[in-house]
Amino acid sequence: TSSLRNSVRYRQFLLSSASNYTVASYLRSLTLHPHLAGTEPSSETVRYVESHFRDLGFETHSIRYDALLSYPKYASLTARLPNGSVVQIPLSENVEGVVNPYHAYSPSGTAYGVAVFVNYGRDEDYRTLAAMGVTVAGCIAVARKGEFPRSVVVAKAEANGVKGVLLYTDSDGYRQGFERGTVMRGIGDPLSPGWAAIDGAERLNLNDSEVLRKFPKIPSMPLSAEAAEIILSSLDTASVPPEWRDTTVKLGTAAVGPGGPTYLNFTYQAEKKIATIHNVLAVIKGLEEPDRFVIMGNHRDAWSFGAVDPNSGTAALLDIARRFSLLRKLGWSPRRTLLLCSWDAEEFGMIGSTEWVEQNIVNLGTKAVAYLNVDCAVQGPGFFSGATPQLDDLLHEVTAQVEDPDVKGATVYDTWTATNGIGNIERLGALNSDFAAFVQHAGVPSIDVYYGRDFPVYHTAFDTYDWMASYGDPLFHRHAAVGSIWGLLALRLADDLILPFSYVSYANQLQAYRDILNDILDGSVSLQSLSTSIHEFKSAAEEIEKEAKRLREQETFTAVALFQTRALNDRLMLAERGFLDVDGLRGHTWFKHLVYGPSSDYESALAYFPGIADAISESMKMNQSEGQGVIQHEIWRVVRAITRAAAALKGELS
Amino acid sequence: TSSLRNSVRYRQFLLSSASNYTVASYLRSLTLHPHLAGTEPSSETVRYVESHFRDLGFETHSIRYDALLSYPKYASLTARLPNGSVVQIPLSENVEGVVNPYHAYSPSGTAYGVAVFVNYGRDEDYRTLAAMGVTVAGCIAVARKGEFPRSVVVAKAEANGVKGVLLYTDSDGYRQGFERGTVMRGIGDPLSPGWAAIDGAERLNLNDSEVLRKFPKIPSMPLSAEAAEIILSSLDTASVPPEWRDTTVKLGTAAVGPGGPTYLNFTYQAEKKIATIHNVLAVIKGLEEPDRFVIMGNHRDAWSFGAVDPNSGTAALLDIARRFSLLRKLGWSPRRTLLLCSWDAEEFGMIGSTEWVEQNIVNLGTKAVAYLNVDCAVQGPGFFSGATPQLDDLLHEVTAQVEDPDVKGATVYDTWTATNGIGNIERLGALNSDFAAFVQHAGVPSIDVYYGRDFPVYHTAFDTYDWMASYGDPLFHRHAAVGSIWGLLALRLADDLILPFSYVSYANQLQAYRDILNDILDGSVSLQSLSTSIHEFKSAAEEIEKEAKRLREQETFTAVALFQTRALNDRLMLAERGFLDVDGLRGHTWFKHLVYGPSSDYESALAYFPGIADAISESMKMNQSEGQGVIQHEIWRVVRAITRAAAALKGELS
Ligand SMILES: [Ca+2]
Ligand SMILES: [Ca+2]
Ligand SMILES: [Zn+2]
Ligand SMILES: [Zn+2]
Ligand SMILES: [Zn+2]
Ligand SMILES: [Zn+2]
Repeated sequence: TSSLRNSVRYRQFLLSSASNYTVASYLRSLTLHPHLAGTEPSSETVRYVESHFRDLGFETHSIRYDALLSYPKYASLTARLPNGSVVQIPLSENVEGVVNPYHAYSPSGTAYGVAVFVNYGRDEDYRTLAAMGVTVAGCIAVARKGEFPRSVVVAKAEANGVKGVLLYTDSDGYRQGFERGTVMRGIGDPLSPGWAAIDGAERLNLNDSEVLRKFPKIPSMPLSAEAAEIILSSLDTASVPPEWRDTTVKLGTAAVGPGGPTYLNFTYQAEKKIATIHNVLAVIKGLEEPDRFVIMGNHRDAWSFGAVDPNSGTAALLDIARRFSLLRKLGWSPRRTLLLCSWDAEEFGMIGSTEWVEQNIVNLGTKAVAYLNVDCAVQGPGFFSGATPQLDDLLHEVTAQVEDPDVKGATVYDTWTATNGIGNIERLGALNSDFAAFVQHAGVPSIDVYYGRDFPVYHTAFDTYDWMASYGDPLFHRHAAVGSIWGLLALRLADDLILPFSYVSYANQLQAYRDILNDILDGSVSLQSLSTSIHEFKSAAEEIEKEAKRLREQETFTAVALFQTRALNDRLMLAERGFLDVDGLRGHTWFKHLVYGPSSDYESALAYFPGIADAISESMKMNQSEGQGVIQHEIWRVVRAITRAAAALKGELS
Repeated sequence: TSSLRNSVRYRQFLLSSASNYTVASYLRSLTLHPHLAGTEPSSETVRYVESHFRDLGFETHSIRYDALLSYPKYASLTARLPNGSVVQIPLSENVEGVVNPYHAYSPSGTAYGVAVFVNYGRDEDYRTLAAMGVTVAGCIAVARKGEFPRSVVVAKAEANGVKGVLLYTDSDGYRQGFERGTVMRGIGDPLSPGWAAIDGAERLNLNDSEVLRKFPKIPSMPLSAEAAEIILSSLDTASVPPEWRDTTVKLGTAAVGPGGPTYLNFTYQAEKKIATIHNVLAVIKGLEEPDRFVIMGNHRDAWSFGAVDPNSGTAALLDIARRFSLLRKLGWSPRRTLLLCSWDAEEFGMIGSTEWVEQNIVNLGTKAVAYLNVDCAVQGPGFFSGATPQLDDLLHEVTAQVEDPDVKGATVYDTWTATNGIGNIERLGALNSDFAAFVQHAGVPSIDVYYGRDFPVYHTAFDTYDWMASYGDPLFHRHAAVGSIWGLLALRLADDLILPFSYVSYANQLQAYRDILNDILDGSVSLQSLSTSIHEFKSAAEEIEKEAKRLREQETFTAVALFQTRALNDRLMLAERGFLDVDGLRGHTWFKHLVYGPSSDYESALAYFPGIADAISESMKMNQSEGQGVIQHEIWRVVRAITRAAAALKGELS
């Protein structure tokens, strides 16, 4: 039923049934009202997605969790400028129905102190300030949003004795926009670490030390560029480094006036509460292998209207559901089970997807083939993607079959690879969308795709349908293209007789990581065992590709041959689990993946092997031999992870 | 090829090809010399087993590890009796080639002090002594071996300030025999916790704190009953409780004489060293499902000649190999892969099997169907067994097909169940044979079978072929019966189209545990969530049994039907993994199983739910609400484990 010839036909039909018109109408419906997680308007989007799936004839589930969310109750910020005038700084965009700007999980508090510009709030920025003779302890930091998470900015400020943090985002347009966001450390419901926040489940106490360490101790807020400028333009920043000046906000340069420095009085009142959230799932049962899962996911909750973030992705998901229902009318059933998932409360820390992964950990750990994430499907022009490396080749193949929405006659692949001949694929070690729990906790091979990046209305009240229709994707062709890519990835993974995974690509990536690590360590610690393990992994990868080739060419479908195919696919599926370590990353043991995951040191030169990255940072504070010992031990853990992945690829007991 | 009819024929042939003659000859060959792990004579047994497997035509592997073992260099013990005489206490059985009596991993040391009889060395024994006004701190304890591990006896002595421990075993015969044994805490190579001690692997330093906590800090030794009597008969034990008097060693009763109490001078010199050990494996590849593993295992290393422990089991394993090779000549190939494993260094702490489980954790975790252990196959009359509960029914079925070796016309099942109508099956939470890593670290459903128990030559130099031929199993019929049971269990698990697992039995067992826990807690902590999770697990168990019945009756063998069978079997196989918790037991996190595993409190009334057992003990030292909180949290962890197992049985994502 899913023979090669039919599969090709279904794929062609999937592509030809793309529709920018329907995807636009879904987006309009989803973005009529702001729909922050845990609020009433959010339930409307649950019902909308649910009935869309149901009306198309899919088995549909709504899964409820009760998670600790955080909302603003009150905020005020006044500045006493050097000239003596007192200014009330605006803390709202004044858009009806949109939650006031805030940082979710910021504590309530009042802070009074001198305003200091701390650039991105990195360690090196505080070192620069110290060298300039600026004391930040007791002050209120004004920082601009850089590459690393808000929670880290606040934590570093806290560590430097800062009393409150105001975080603005550089932007040329939309200078009244405030970038909301979470400052929680880690992901998932903070009261149920490691297990699902289902009805009646255990919940940690709010003052449990494991809970408290997830939240900052000082209050923080987002600022608009406009609001930040009121403060920063009043400061004496004559002596800050030139790099600090490439901000879109005007910095003051006059020496501090007769009134002295600028004093800020900042108050924030938060409400933490257990709120109800819902994931919505559509299930298309696999015909031959219903117990193998290909999972597509996108979050539904938004800080405001969510036209870009995340409902451009939701619209694409709903359109794929529509296309899949047409395929079913043509007689298609996937070989493996397909799930279309609409997650809730991503903005608070990937809560909906994380709780679901925790709830299903045994079945996902042994039966999930891949997770395909789309968050902001369209932010602007240009294709971007992230993946665990065994899926690189598939991304190339699939993008070569989809027309570029902006360049006539070219495929997405052509345009994507035009600049440097290869498609740049990010890795999935960050905590910035719903793939995090799948990759970093469950070891499920994953992909993330999107169009455009760095859009100006990010997390503001101005992320509306109108913005999308005016700037992001006026013709909705990019939405259609993301849908085609996402749908085709899912079809390939659900229908291919042999899973379209290449671990040689993974081996090469690991080898490249080893080489960079080698440069960083500069011979101070041996990488012999790491090289050996990568070599072993690569051999296993090459061997299984040969086996896969033989099986693809095989024509017989005896019971023995069917089981051979299944066994090979299981090895391909399970190899990623080998990278998980049961003990997890030191200091944040929930994260089990030793190649991709969050390091504590966000400024590390290593963007992978997070345990090694942290060991290198820690080693700086130790004597040489102790430091090398800590690094060596973390390298050993990675060596064993790679060896486990190789063993899973080989599939045999030694 | 392995259709139902043929399977029955193969099973009948397996039974009819039993041979007490061959099994006796294997035992004689294996027990010609003492073969302590890591010593040269031990390599001879490696070669013997290896060539046996090879000669039968099986794919055979020898797998090497380098593990930290421990050997005695010197020991002496002198007593100054109350009458003033000084006696050299014999510390050897004087049998050529047998290692001198010792406790593996006891530290070297000299202790001088008053001898005190501490009964079994339990907490309650020390409390009794304290109530009698006896100070044990600074003394040398003479203890008799009770139910709990040597390492615990020594640890409790250490905690009470004792300077050295002499441990004898009650016995009516063989009163010159010394019971050797290990005093390591935990299992596996102490230098590679969590990973395999393969060539070139990371090894912790001997003074790493994680290594040090595995070893006692005070020296200890086994004593023969004869040697113990020299000391104990000299002591004033007039006031010890009557229960302490049911020892086979004569206790002194006269008040301490003119010379005062008995003083002991005890010296022990140990050598810890990294030694080479070998597991030997024979692999019989499955025809349809080569990637599903049924594993039979027995250890090969012995403290002395090992006729009972463990080579009665090795002889049975070799005889099963012989029988399987005959089956192969009849055309048999198992449906699933069968492994026959001969483990090394079990006596030091299940080291060979544990290292292998650590090495193969990813493949075992996802693909091992069951582990079938036999340690001392024959210790005397009477059938005994242990199992994870989903295998209870299979044990009943299989024993009903094997003739009782001692009772004509009866089956093993008949005799086994004659006393109380049911066959008593132990559970596998202890650390006393090679199933420990399989069950408690990897969550593999397991069985352990043996004939007889409590044999007098246990771990002594007198565990010889002659003892077996004279007392243990003169006709070797019990060996043949164990072989038949073990082989038939393996055949059923390897060949049955639907795995012969019953989780209803597991659910009932959990329910019984809940009821006992309820009695212990007496309403102080709610068990509502535990009851709910067991109920959910039981429903899932009943549902899958219905599904299994339908599939067994189904006659078609389409691709879809084949995959249905595989999917059902996978659910049955993986449900046990649900009981694993990634964080493991507090204080010994390597142990991941929350139903069966070692509790720190060996005197707990709970012989399962080790985390709850420990929480109950700890709660004694806390105020009421704090104590209840700790217990409640451990109950929650068990609830989630049972819920995970239920989810694995259901096999669907929620
Ligand atoms: Ca949770
Ligand atoms: Ca080890
Ligand atoms: Zn988003
Ligand atoms: Zn967002
Ligand atoms: Zn044994
Ligand atoms: Zn033993």
